[in-house]
Formats: sequence, C-alpha cells, structure tokens
Amino acid sequence: MANADLGGDIVARIEALAAISETDAHLVRVFLTKEHRAAAELILSWMREAGMQAHLDAIGNVCGRYEGDRLGLPCLMLGSHYDTVRDAGKWDGPLGLISAIACVAELNRRGRRLPFAIEVTGFADEEGVRFASTLLGSRAVAGTFDESTLSARDANGVSMHEALTQFGLDPDALGAAARHRRELLAYVELHIEQGPVLEAQDLPVGVVTAISGATRLAARLTGFAGHAGTVPMALRRDALAGAAECIGAIEAFCRTDDNGLVGTVGAIHAAPGATNVIPGQVSFTIDIRAPTDAHRQRAVSDIVRNIETIAARRRLALQLDVTHENRTAPCAPGLKQQIADAIAAEGFRPFELPSGAGHDGMAMIDVADVGMIFVRCRGGVSHHPDEHVERADADAGARVLLRLIENFRPRAD
Amino acid sequence: MANADLGGDIVARIEALAAISETDAHLVRVFLTKEHRAAAELILSWMREAGMQAHLDAIGNVCGRYEGDRLGLPCLMLGSHYDTVRDAGKWDGPLGLISAIACVAELNRRGRRLPFAIEVTGFADEEGVRFASTLLGSRAVAGTFDESTLSARDANGVSMHEALTQFGLDPDALGAAARHRRELLAYVELHIEQGPVLEAQDLPVGVVTAISGATRLAARLTGFAGHAGTVPMALRRDALAGAAECIGAIEAFCRTDDNGLVGTVGAIHAAPGATNVIPGQVSFTIDIRAPTDAHRQRAVSDIVRNIETIAARRRLALQLDVTHENRTAPCAPGLKQQIADAIAAEGFRPFELPSGAGHDGMAMIDVADVGMIFVRCRGGVSHHPDEHVERADADAGARVLLRLIENFRPRAD
Repeated sequence: MANADLGGDIVARIEALAAISETDAHLVRVFLTKEHRAAAELILSWMREAGMQAHLDAIGNVCGRYEGDRLGLPCLMLGSHYDTVRDAGKWDGPLGLISAIACVAELNRRGRRLPFAIEVTGFADEEGVRFASTLLGSRAVAGTFDESTLSARDANGVSMHEALTQFGLDPDALGAAARHRRELLAYVELHIEQGPVLEAQDLPVGVVTAISGATRLAARLTGFAGHAGTVPMALRRDALAGAAECIGAIEAFCRTDDNGLVGTVGAIHAAPGATNVIPGQVSFTIDIRAPTDAHRQRAVSDIVRNIETIAARRRLALQLDVTHENRTAPCAPGLKQQIADAIAAEGFRPFELPSGAGHDGMAMIDVADVGMIFVRCRGGVSHHPDEHVERADADAGARVLLRLIENFRPRAD
Repeated sequence: MANADLGGDIVARIEALAAISETDAHLVRVFLTKEHRAAAELILSWMREAGMQAHLDAIGNVCGRYEGDRLGLPCLMLGSHYDTVRDAGKWDGPLGLISAIACVAELNRRGRRLPFAIEVTGFADEEGVRFASTLLGSRAVAGTFDESTLSARDANGVSMHEALTQFGLDPDALGAAARHRRELLAYVELHIEQGPVLEAQDLPVGVVTAISGATRLAARLTGFAGHAGTVPMALRRDALAGAAECIGAIEAFCRTDDNGLVGTVGAIHAAPGATNVIPGQVSFTIDIRAPTDAHRQRAVSDIVRNIETIAARRRLALQLDVTHENRTAPCAPGLKQQIADAIAAEGFRPFELPSGAGHDGMAMIDVADVGMIFVRCRGGVSHHPDEHVERADADAGARVLLRLIENFRPRAD
C-alpha cells in the first residue's frame, strides 16, 4: 500500500490549476484559449515529473504515457477533462486527471512497472462552453469527432476551425487524435459525484454503474385563458393547473422507482402570465434519466401516457416533443467489480450509484470498456465556486484508483 | 310591455361608440383623451334625444336625468362606464350605458313618468388604463375619490391633474361630482357577464349576488437547486415540484366549494429555469375571490395553511405576502329580488351568480344600494376584440332593465 500523502499533493495541484483562469473573480478555463495553453503546459510538466512521456494531441488533449514492463503494451487509460464551465468549481474534471497523475507518480517513485502501460489523458473540452458542443476531446480520442462542429462559432464569431489554427493545431488532422480499441485495455475515470448521494451514505467513494442516458421533452398545454374572477372552477381549462398536475405526476412516478430514475421539470412558462388571468397556455421541459436505456425509455412512455391522460381529462391540447436524447453508457461489469474490490480493500463499503451527469466515458465507450469512480463532494454542489472535496476524500479516491491500477486485470477476451 | 326593437337600437349604438377609438386596428378609449371627448358628446346627444337633461360632470362622467312625475325627486341611478381597456371588446361598459339610455328613450316615447327620477351615468374611467387607478368616475360620484391620484402620471408623464385641466375640467373642483345618498334610491348596472356561466346555463340574463372581493398573494418557495441528473428524487428540495403541489391544492380546495369561490395561479417563475437544473426557487401569484368577505377570508386562511403544510413537508422555505385585497360589494337583497322578478316576468328563469370581475358598483356601494344584471356574452370572452353579445340577448337585457325600472320600489326605510 502507498504511503505517500496523495491527498495533500492532489489538493495542492487542484489549487495550482485553479489559478489558471480567464478572470480572477471566477474560474473559467475554455477550449483553445491561452488559459487552455497554460493549463496544458502545467499538466504536461506534472506528467513528465511523474515519469511519463507526454504530449499535446491533435485536438489539444494532454496525453501522458507510462510504459509497462515492456515497451508498447496496450494501456489502461485514465483521464478526465481540464476545461471548466463559467464560474466553475475547481474539482470537476481536474480531480480525476490530477489523481491519475498522482497514482502514476507513486508507481514511478516505487519504480513499479505493470504488465500493461498506463496512459493519462486530460481532455481539452468536455463541458462544451465555447462551441456549445460537449465531449470534444474524448470524441476525438474515440474517433467519433463530428467534423461539422469545426464550423461552429463561439460568442465572438470565431469558428472552431479558426481557433484550432490560432492555437497551432491543424483542423484537418484531428483524426490523428483517434485511438484504436486494441490500444486500450479500458478507460477508467475518477470524478467528483456532483450529487449528494455519497454524502448521504457517509462514504468517500463509490462505484459508478452507468452514465445515465437522458431524454428531454418539451411539453405545451393549451387550454383557454379567462378572467380569474369570472370563470367558475368547473368551467376552466387552466393550462397551469394542468401543468402542475403533470409535474406532480412526473415526480410521483420517479419517486416510486428504486433504480436510479430521475425526472425533472426545470423550466416553465405560463401565458399570458398575469395575476388575474387564468393561464391559457403553459410550456415546460422534462428531463428523464435512468441507468439503462430500456428503463429510461419505459419511464418516458409511462410519463408521456400519464401526461396525455391528464391533458385529455382536462380538455387541454397537448404538444409533446423529444428535444434531446442520449443513450446510457453502462460501466463494464468487470471494471465495476475491480473498482468495488479496490474500495473494499481500502476499507470502505463498496456502494454503487449511477452517474446522472455526463462524462467523457460517454464518448470513450465507443473505443473501450468504461469504469468510473466517484468521489464525494460537499452538499452535492458542482458547477459552482462552492464545489468542494475534502482532502481525505481526495486521498481515498486516489488510493482506490492506485489499488485498482495495481490489481488491474484486462478483460479476458 | 315595450314593443320597440330595443336590441337593434342598442347594437347600432354599440357599433357607433366602438368607432370612436385611438386606433383603427384596436378599440382603445382612454380617460381624458379626444376619444373620451368624442364619445361623451355622442352619449350626451343620445341622452338628450331620449328626453334627458344631460351634462358632463366634474370628472368627465356623462350624466343624464329624466325627471319623475314631479321635478326634483330622488333618482334610480343606472349606469356603466364608457372607457375601455387596450384592444378591447365593444360591449364591456357601453352595453349597460346604452341599454339604460334605450330604456329611458322608450319611457319617453310612451310619455311615461314614474314616481322617481331616473339618472343615467356613463363613468369616464372604470378600467384605470391611463393612470393605473380604477373606478375613478364612480369614486368621484360616490365621494370617495382619492385626491392623491391627481399626481399619478400616464405613460407620457402627464399627470391626472394636468390631463383634467387640458380636458377643460377643474381638478380642484372634483368634489362637485359627488352625490348624496338621499339623492339616490339605488344604483343598478347592467353589464356583460365576462364569464361563461350564463352561456353554460343557456340563459340570456342573470341576477348578480355580489361583486366578489379579491385577495391576491405572492408566494415564493425556496428549496435547493441541483443537477437534474445527479440528485436522487428522495434527496431533492425541488421548488417547482412544491409549487405544483400548491397549485393543485388551491385548485382542489376551490373546486370543492359550491358558493362561488375561485382561486387562480396566473403567473409563475422558476429559477434558474434550465432544462437540466432542479428549480431552487419558484415564485407564483394567487388570486382568491368569493361572493362574501367572510367566505373569502376563510378560504384564504385555509389555502395559506395548506401551502404552509406543503412547504414544511418538502423542506422548502416559504414567503407568502398579501399584495392586494378588496372587499366584497354585496348586491342589495331587495334589488336582487326585483331583478329576479323582472327576469321571470320576461319569461326567463331567474338565475343568481356572483361577479368575479370588478365594476363601478364597488364604488357606488358607498353612496347607494347596488343591483346588477348580467347579460350573456359569447364564450365568456371579454377584454378582447372577440367579445360578443347576441342582439337577442342585448334585447332581453334591456327589457329586463325596463321592466325593473317600471316596477321599481325604493327600499322602505
């Protein structure tokens, strides 16, 4: 077992990376900017310090490689992203990347070589802040980068094609970032949970079962606007009362589920929206996630049927459209087991939970088996300056990751 | 019984008055404008044609007087308003005023004098569009005009004081519009229902029981925003799910009431309002009306208690403020009876309903007993160009009003 203070080193590097920001007041680090460059240089230096060969790939990902007991072996790839949202926390992305480097550094310190290589990839853009398209770094690595996004423009009108060129990269050579399945034994990512489950379970780490797919719908109910004083309750076709019943039904449906289903109505708009007018039309969004596609799709049909029933009973016209859908990325059973074993060996109760948020594994699953370790974050708060991980939890996460690496067994086939 | 075609004359005059508008595309007729002037002149001419003495009073109301069988008798006052909302219908206000003039014209045609005078008042501003203060005309007549509103300014920065002066009226002499209780035997107003109840009852006219008072509240629920994917249902403090439950409770509570209670949530705002974020804070309005103050106040307390219970159970912070409250104006029992008798005599089933919308009677009740006759309007639509009254219903309303006048018995005391 490693005795170095992994947690302390990790926290120090989290702070160092967080100092690289577009503004002093808020942490912002966006794709293909000078902060991207500065962060990449720092991470490359850490990789080299840890005994890795390191370079920037064709899309700006930082890539470090620690050879196995022979040169050129397939690798266990570890990674996470180092871009941020606007006014971000310090831990979302960097924790996984820095923990992976810390593990390699510890192996290197001990002179330990394994029967496989280890690669650490820092993805250049997972959040998609600049070009409104997520997972750019991991899609390039997985070979699924959509060339049409090169023409996307940022808020200043700069296209991704232009930005890559200005950064010194060749937009026509992004394919060079793609990896072959045979090079990768697995992809394992450590990440903050971004939710309150581990805290509620009083556990520093957890085994991710899947990155939940999501279906988003846009609902619009149309009734009949009327004077709040003159239309008796029985004669109303109140679109907001209808929407309220739908929201209640979505919540009740998801609450009865024990398998990670979540449903959220995040946005609502009632028209005309005056105190003394019965709303004639209400629009709202629905976001449904579950750890398997079949589960989510079944839930979506049940919820849609519930909403249709409510609308029909209330004589409200219903328009319901799927606006977004992405599949579930299930974690590989063998990796889940190995992560659970590592957690148990570190003295914690292995606890499984789905990831409701998206991660680079959603792209990496096209080129490798995916495993994920979650680390507890305070109050479940993320994408916010208050995002926080205790040093002891960062340490626990890194120790689990290190133990996983040391005991890693590639899939038999 | 009158044989003249009251309905046809009324519809023709409704159209004539509707032609006086700020714009051709939308009906807009606002206090102390040239359209106010033109409409007043037209109405005064109709009053004189109907055998009345007519003048503009100190606030711009049109006032017609048809003497009784002796000069100087107390009057039965009839009336309604002739200002409009923006993009108004033609009937809201003018129907009552024009019907009253038609009744007097018919009495005059027959040379009929009654043992009391009849006055018809066209109120200059009921809607409050220009100075955001309603019932200006009837408050002046009731002697309850609030002098502080003279300093209110319209959208162009013109004060009511200036506008009155420009119109040729003396803002310091508004008191001259006030009437004494001893001059008025009663105030009776015919008005379109502005709701769908008479249509649902298949009746052209109805007896108003009261102008419902209203309580408006502003509610704010504060929970905890979170990622739509990462926070399990059981750990959420979703402000919108809480608001939805409140809206459902308000609707359910009011639906169980058989005595004219109505409750409306007309406006709602959820923050941050993103598809993939659990709403942390939701604000919404509540409008509660009932035909008696006691009934409304009891309902408000019950609803507030329901909302408090929901908020507490869901661990949501609740801020609940009364933003507006106005008392009920009950119609005088004697007048309700006389209106019901007149309806029955015209061959219709007397049907009672409250008025959920406000009317000049809310001000006139301070100086006279108030009675109201409602006339069916198509689909309950009002404050909209589609506002419509069938000619036969306008005729029925006028005949009921005429019969009421002819059989009117002042209160005994």
